[in-house]
Amino acid sequence: MFAFKQVIVVRRDLGMGAGKIAAQAAHAAVLGVEKAYRMRPAWVEGWRADGMPKVVLQVPGEAELADVCARAEAAGLPVAPVRDRGLTQVAAGTLTCVGIGPAAAPDVDAVTGDLRLL
Amino acid sequence: MFAFKQVIVVRRDLGMGAGKIAAQAAHAAVLGVEKAYRMRPAWVEGWRADGMPKVVLQVPGEAELADVCARAEAAGLPVAPVRDRGLTQVAAGTLTCVGIGPAAAPDVDAVTGDLRLL
Repeated sequence: MFAFKQVIVVRRDLGMGAGKIAAQAAHAAVLGVEKAYRMRPAWVEGWRADGMPKVVLQVPGEAELADVCARAEAAGLPVAPVRDRGLTQVAAGTLTCVGIGPAAAPDVDAVTGDLRLL
Repeated sequence: MFAFKQVIVVRRDLGMGAGKIAAQAAHAAVLGVEKAYRMRPAWVEGWRADGMPKVVLQVPGEAELADVCARAEAAGLPVAPVRDRGLTQVAAGTLTCVGIGPAAAPDVDAVTGDLRLL
């Protein structure tokens, strides 16, 4: 549907509330855009032209999130892991979510296409 | 606590799920950074040096969100309203949330300090 997309993958095992998830996802989105821009500006420009499509997906826990990160890195995608500062709800340094992209949608889907929507 | 911050204010009356809220907040965060950078790059640089602090707050509905936007605009802050594309959950064009900042924390707090955490 879109040529470019950004996906944010969130851990479901941390018991984070909706506001906490939103703040972590926002962090991943901003870091992901910066990383993509450094890697390949055309990804960010194409994604912007598409209206900045974003999809938020879920994984059961840290092991699955680490696996998604590794596969996205291996695919050459921009990967933006978020570790929480630990001021609220979770321990400092906890990996809470990861931004993948913005990048070409088929390449992102190849890594995240099997994950469920949050 | 931080010299700079970004606040994202979300409507609670739309029945959005956690993933939908996260995607809308991520959109507001990215748009807000872009807007702040165009208005005053030092806001974004200071915020980055602070670790990009973000807070997600809530309002009961559209009227309250419009009021926050108007007060933030009047205060000269970067304001990034998000209208949904309407592909899922809410009607196209619905104002779902707004990003305020990154900017100096006391100026953001003067507009949003009375709102509740999401």
